[in-house]
Amino acid sequence: MREVFQTELHEVQSRLVELAQDATRVIEKATNAFNQSNVHLADDAIAIADATANKALALDELVIKILARQSPVARDLRILVSALRISASLERMSALAGHIAAIARYRFPDSAVPAPLRETFVEMGKLDVELGKKVVELLQNTDVDFARQIQAQDARIDELHRHVFDVVLGSDWKENAMYTVDVTLASRYHERFADHVVDISAKVSYLTTGDWNDAE
Amino acid sequence: MREVFQTELHEVQSRLVELAQDATRVIEKATNAFNQSNVHLADDAIAIADATANKALALDELVIKILARQSPVARDLRILVSALRISASLERMSALAGHIAAIARYRFPDSAVPAPLRETFVEMGKLDVELGKKVVELLQNTDVDFARQIQAQDARIDELHRHVFDVVLGSDWKENAMYTVDVTLASRYHERFADHVVDISAKVSYLTTGDWNDAE
Repeated sequence: MREVFQTELHEVQSRLVELAQDATRVIEKATNAFNQSNVHLADDAIAIADATANKALALDELVIKILARQSPVARDLRILVSALRISASLERMSALAGHIAAIARYRFPDSAVPAPLRETFVEMGKLDVELGKKVVELLQNTDVDFARQIQAQDARIDELHRHVFDVVLGSDWKENAMYTVDVTLASRYHERFADHVVDISAKVSYLTTGDWNDAE
Repeated sequence: MREVFQTELHEVQSRLVELAQDATRVIEKATNAFNQSNVHLADDAIAIADATANKALALDELVIKILARQSPVARDLRILVSALRISASLERMSALAGHIAAIARYRFPDSAVPAPLRETFVEMGKLDVELGKKVVELLQNTDVDFARQIQAQDARIDELHRHVFDVVLGSDWKENAMYTVDVTLASRYHERFADHVVDISAKVSYLTTGDWNDAE
């Protein structure tokens, strides 16, 4: 029974890794679509994001089946409940990245990013892609130090998010309302993507440090 | 054992109702704060939203304990897993409503809503409050027809959300970037609030119709 359970947990883990890889592919394509006005990359990103919802649903069904068959307790139970939450976060990450691609698509062939914010969005996108890759690695290795390190990286995204507002609300901003709307939403989506990464890292480190063991 | 389980399920249900009542109180205060530039209501809304996160966490802990003690299967298991997801949605609803209050607070004593969009935001806020109240009722009574009816109401919020963009991107829009940013984000928060209501209703009707019974 224990061996079957371990195999099943392994399956859950590799599906979470796959969802994280999807979210990373979506944000990578979306941020390039957004910064380079590339409509093909935008379409790719949106297609992967759409497929992620079903994968997340299938994973949740698997977790529910394992809960029913194995009736796990203590740490095993918490791992499975965490898997449900992590899958919800990964699905949202793909959706948020898909929204960034949708803005690029909508403005094509124009750019959605005006000159004064181009560098900022390139950096934001790069950071989100890095965070996506780190989540993939974290879900493969569940290392608590690595999880804490990821949580610290979110600070720079928050800084860039605030910078977008400083620029938009500054006296030098002469762009039209369309640009203002696009960069406001795009910045929010980038920031929420990183928030979910922090949530996932917090869950993994919580499980790994074993604090949860005492709670049941 | 069954009787204990029913009592525990009841406790989960009443805590979900409480979270839904909180989310409704937050959106009610937030939308009034936003539309009437009332900083006291904004502070109230933010305080309730902050407290909701801990209540949701406590509810999740309770659900995990019940899962561990009772090892439920089939429909009972699905109800508990759904409770975890519904609590996550209710927590996000309070957070989103809190963000609306934060915009009002930030702009005080000025208004965050320019004249051309005042009516739109009053209607959006009213609809979100109504949806919040309906979620409270739905979680108390779990009626499938009522759940479906709620899902249909989200369409009007989406319409208003699009209307905000039409106004902002129209040639008559002469407001500064600050207003553009505020109404873009506020409209998004109102719309996401309603999205979560739809998610919750879908989960309740799925559980109530018994489709889930066949899946395990």
